[in-house]
Amino acid sequence: MKKKQPMDELRKRLSEVYYLSSILNLLNWDQEVNMPHRGSGPRSISIAHLSGIVHNKFVALDKGGVLTNLKRQLDAKKLKGKDAVIVYETWRSFDRERKLPEKFVREMAEITSKAQNKWAEAREKNDFSLFLPWLKKIVSLKRKEAELVGYTDSPYDALLDAYEPDMTSKEVSRILDDLKDFLVPFLKRIKESKIKIDDRKLSGHFPIEKQVEFNEMIARKMGFDLESGRLDKSTHPFTSGFHPNDVRITTRYSEKDIFYSIGSTIHESGHALYDQGLPEEHFGTPLAESVSLGIHESQSRLWENNVGKDKPFWKYFYPKLQKEFPKPFKSIPTEAFYKAINAVKPSLIRTQADEVTYNLHIIIRFEIEKEMIEGSIDLAKLPEIWCFKMKKYLGIDVPTDKEGVLQDVHWSAGLIGYFPTYSLGNLYAAQLYATMNKQIPRLSNKIAGGHMEEVKNWLRKNVHIHGKTYSAQELIRKITGEYLNSRYFNEYLEKKYGEIYKLEKLTRKSR
Amino acid sequence: MKKKQPMDELRKRLSEVYYLSSILNLLNWDQEVNMPHRGSGPRSISIAHLSGIVHNKFVALDKGGVLTNLKRQLDAKKLKGKDAVIVYETWRSFDRERKLPEKFVREMAEITSKAQNKWAEAREKNDFSLFLPWLKKIVSLKRKEAELVGYTDSPYDALLDAYEPDMTSKEVSRILDDLKDFLVPFLKRIKESKIKIDDRKLSGHFPIEKQVEFNEMIARKMGFDLESGRLDKSTHPFTSGFHPNDVRITTRYSEKDIFYSIGSTIHESGHALYDQGLPEEHFGTPLAESVSLGIHESQSRLWENNVGKDKPFWKYFYPKLQKEFPKPFKSIPTEAFYKAINAVKPSLIRTQADEVTYNLHIIIRFEIEKEMIEGSIDLAKLPEIWCFKMKKYLGIDVPTDKEGVLQDVHWSAGLIGYFPTYSLGNLYAAQLYATMNKQIPRLSNKIAGGHMEEVKNWLRKNVHIHGKTYSAQELIRKITGEYLNSRYFNEYLEKKYGEIYKLEKLTRKSR
Repeated sequence: MKKKQPMDELRKRLSEVYYLSSILNLLNWDQEVNMPHRGSGPRSISIAHLSGIVHNKFVALDKGGVLTNLKRQLDAKKLKGKDAVIVYETWRSFDRERKLPEKFVREMAEITSKAQNKWAEAREKNDFSLFLPWLKKIVSLKRKEAELVGYTDSPYDALLDAYEPDMTSKEVSRILDDLKDFLVPFLKRIKESKIKIDDRKLSGHFPIEKQVEFNEMIARKMGFDLESGRLDKSTHPFTSGFHPNDVRITTRYSEKDIFYSIGSTIHESGHALYDQGLPEEHFGTPLAESVSLGIHESQSRLWENNVGKDKPFWKYFYPKLQKEFPKPFKSIPTEAFYKAINAVKPSLIRTQADEVTYNLHIIIRFEIEKEMIEGSIDLAKLPEIWCFKMKKYLGIDVPTDKEGVLQDVHWSAGLIGYFPTYSLGNLYAAQLYATMNKQIPRLSNKIAGGHMEEVKNWLRKNVHIHGKTYSAQELIRKITGEYLNSRYFNEYLEKKYGEIYKLEKLTRKSR
Repeated sequence: MKKKQPMDELRKRLSEVYYLSSILNLLNWDQEVNMPHRGSGPRSISIAHLSGIVHNKFVALDKGGVLTNLKRQLDAKKLKGKDAVIVYETWRSFDRERKLPEKFVREMAEITSKAQNKWAEAREKNDFSLFLPWLKKIVSLKRKEAELVGYTDSPYDALLDAYEPDMTSKEVSRILDDLKDFLVPFLKRIKESKIKIDDRKLSGHFPIEKQVEFNEMIARKMGFDLESGRLDKSTHPFTSGFHPNDVRITTRYSEKDIFYSIGSTIHESGHALYDQGLPEEHFGTPLAESVSLGIHESQSRLWENNVGKDKPFWKYFYPKLQKEFPKPFKSIPTEAFYKAINAVKPSLIRTQADEVTYNLHIIIRFEIEKEMIEGSIDLAKLPEIWCFKMKKYLGIDVPTDKEGVLQDVHWSAGLIGYFPTYSLGNLYAAQLYATMNKQIPRLSNKIAGGHMEEVKNWLRKNVHIHGKTYSAQELIRKITGEYLNSRYFNEYLEKKYGEIYKLEKLTRKSR
């Protein structure tokens, strides 16, 4: 019985930290979705205060040596099962958090909250110089964070680890270089194909209210539970899970382009299904936390691309789309529709990129932010560097910083080391989806028949309910029998786009 | 210079308390406006944790004796101006807060958050017995609170003081008894009048979206700044001010009755103008806090009734209403419209009551809750007692508990001692409005011309900007030259409803 007591005490303390953190998430959600314009000043101060408190509570997990003693028991292999997971994962976060002084945490929270507004202004005015001083502050804070946390190889590793535990920049470089080696020539082949796809036929006039209904219908059909969640509008679509019973997604709407909302809704619903599928009974411990951002992204991308841009999904939804929006869809046959939503064309904006070019956007960001943190780049030159790389990898010119280096919120929010998880997510998704297709007989038919719960249930059983029980690498190996590799993703692209663009088969180089 | 340091330290500590409290307000606002159904369980836990933290921070204001020393300086008359106000008011709240153990505060927060859901269920099912055990818990907690805080006369005083500082139940009883003595016979005279007003002519079919626009137009015209606020829907209209730059109101809509929303919007906008008008530069101190709930209610009621149910206001807005909703308003002349919106009829629901009967609803609640706290009532008998009093004061039968004792959220939220502030608000409003009319020449003409800013600016200058600089009694005396009394309210009703119902003049009994 005595052995149980410190565990209970740790659970109690942890629970408070998780509930308070979920308040921070609500503050951020509200800031994006509801907050009136002039509320931003006071909001950053509230966020800074609460961030300081959460940090202090986190560090105080070890008050009386409770956590240290449990860690010793863990190392001596005296803890098993769920307790072992809780102590292992809590120690990992604690060990990072305790190295950061409270003052640093508050400063980071306040600066990044303010910098997001400055970034929005700079983007609106297409003026990088407005953002530059804030970016300098943030990069300097993040470099300091890396020093405080510590690292062996690159300071970038210390940041990456917060989003994708155990991943290193060396490993990411290897994976992304492989990907680049595949993608750049693959994109060239597509560009040279005689098949040209015109996706302008998909545009039209779509009243927002009807779009909202259609998006909600898709989200529900995927299994998103609106008794435990919401769907709202915001400038940048995102998912915020406060608790498995309160998970909120946002999407964005364009009157001319219904896929502007649908793509985001499917993507965010994928994230939301993960958050709603975490085991409620373990909320307040790492057992009800997602594995990593890469695994989280695999859930959204699997739904958005592997499922949501494939024929079976639209076999089910296309007749509904045609019924709700006869103009223009009544006159577009299913096959032409399928090709149009999968048109590959290098473009300026990451969030609107197709599956083939998307990872090239990520590679550019990763290469730049790694150098930012390693201090080997002049921040004032970012716009030029951006243009250079866009030309080199995607072959296009960047007309404005608004559509270039200023397009993403991440850096202004202090999220450096975050971008690579998007590409990892794509790779995880492809590997998971290949396995899912092996394990569920006639999955395509089931999806085409509207049985989306097949996908949801498989992901729930294999990924969601485990929380942080396994590391990303362990989990992917447990499910697919292999560690993460880019083979599945490359094969997937080759097969799908080989068909669409009638590409000649090449002898594939294995990595 | 040395004297300034403890003041700076106190301001710093206080600021954190205010910013964290405004997060609690956001949690509550979100709970009413956005939270998905199943989010309520985790939400009550988050609220309990943060309430505990705010309480601890409040008590820690005195760490190192900072506040005690400043209080000594205040008592020795060594503090002046704003510093004196801050220390006086902070000491008052601190002295209350420190008597409550953290465990008690958390328990209260969690129980009341849960009880609100139970109450909603009981009301929906029209089953008082579902709510009774929760009411018992809450009354027992509130009685404990009164014991912890301490009181001289009645335990009710200890609760009342949290909402209306310095007010006692004895004084409230005196004021409300006076009011009852006036209202019961006055209502009888109106009922016996030959003038019968049919307000059913105001009903129709009003699409919600158009109502939203109309309500927003009124709120804007009153001066509500939507750059620093929002207008949303919720079951029970309310105002939540997180900071003068972020003040949110809600209203409710009925397709059949546009005044269901308009009345609430004007009322809540009145509250919101107060919150937006508090001096931003002093946020984080009592200088940017409202005086009392009674004074707060005076702001909403002055707009809702004294201004918003009077002829000049509708001289400006009625043509707009007729234009937007020609059916039924095109065929109703202004004079008939004015009478219809002021029809007096005893009714079941407080929030829909007219100006004459409204305070009788409050008197019933006050009499009951005072006995609840004094322990002289059997809680299981509340439904019967409710019916008895409704019959006695208003002359009507209560068909269901849903429309009776279960109609208000307050008790489930632990808000006992709150109701009398509604009546105090009506009296303050009448007294303020009489003075405003003396001080602003031709105010009626100005309102009729759409110059609502005359009202707003007068309230801003006389009430809003002072925050808690003066007590309610000092403030009302400073502005009107008299302490609070019911004469202005009674005169206002006699004049207005005497005209509408063509009542014969009586010799007025002065109190």
